[in-house]
Amino acid sequence: MPTIVVEVMPKAELLDPAGKAVSGALARLGHTVFTSVRIGKRFELTVDGPVTEATLAEARMIAEEMLSNQVIEDVISVHEAPAVGVGA
Amino acid sequence: MPTIVVEVMPKAELLDPAGKAVSGALARLGHTVFTSVRIGKRFELTVDGPVTEATLAEARMIAEEMLSNQVIEDVISVHEAPAVGVGA
Repeated sequence: MPTIVVEVMPKAELLDPAGKAVSGALARLGHTVFTSVRIGKRFELTVDGPVTEATLAEARMIAEEMLSNQVIEDVISVHEAPAVGVGA
Repeated sequence: MPTIVVEVMPKAELLDPAGKAVSGALARLGHTVFTSVRIGKRFELTVDGPVTEATLAEARMIAEEMLSNQVIEDVISVHEAPAVGVGA
């Protein structure tokens, strides 16, 4: 069944304490090439039927109103997953 | 600065209680077109310098060993973000 992927990240102007902690840990472990880490969420919505423009619009609305907290997060992408059940 | 994106999702064969809860809430609110929801993580690693094959390999290693719990999660993608600082 087709899948819509929603990606949510903390707003750029806000601190991300968990990301900061991971970033510090990576530096301590010698992975100094990565200067900062931010941690967001990735939702997979399984769609019953074909993905139409209306389905995508409904997913976008759900992403903005329910899957993200607009005070601290941005929805950065709502798109149909290219393949079904296959990771890259 | 270039960014590497790491995507981690709960393994397909495992229950995802948070996703299940969201899925139930969507159904109650009338969004019945979405039959299932799974919630994973999305990491953005900022890279100091150009993204080489070695940087990607290091990111893949970090993704497998530190950013995901291999018992319950799969790393589904490690790739360079197409644009810098621009959401889609």
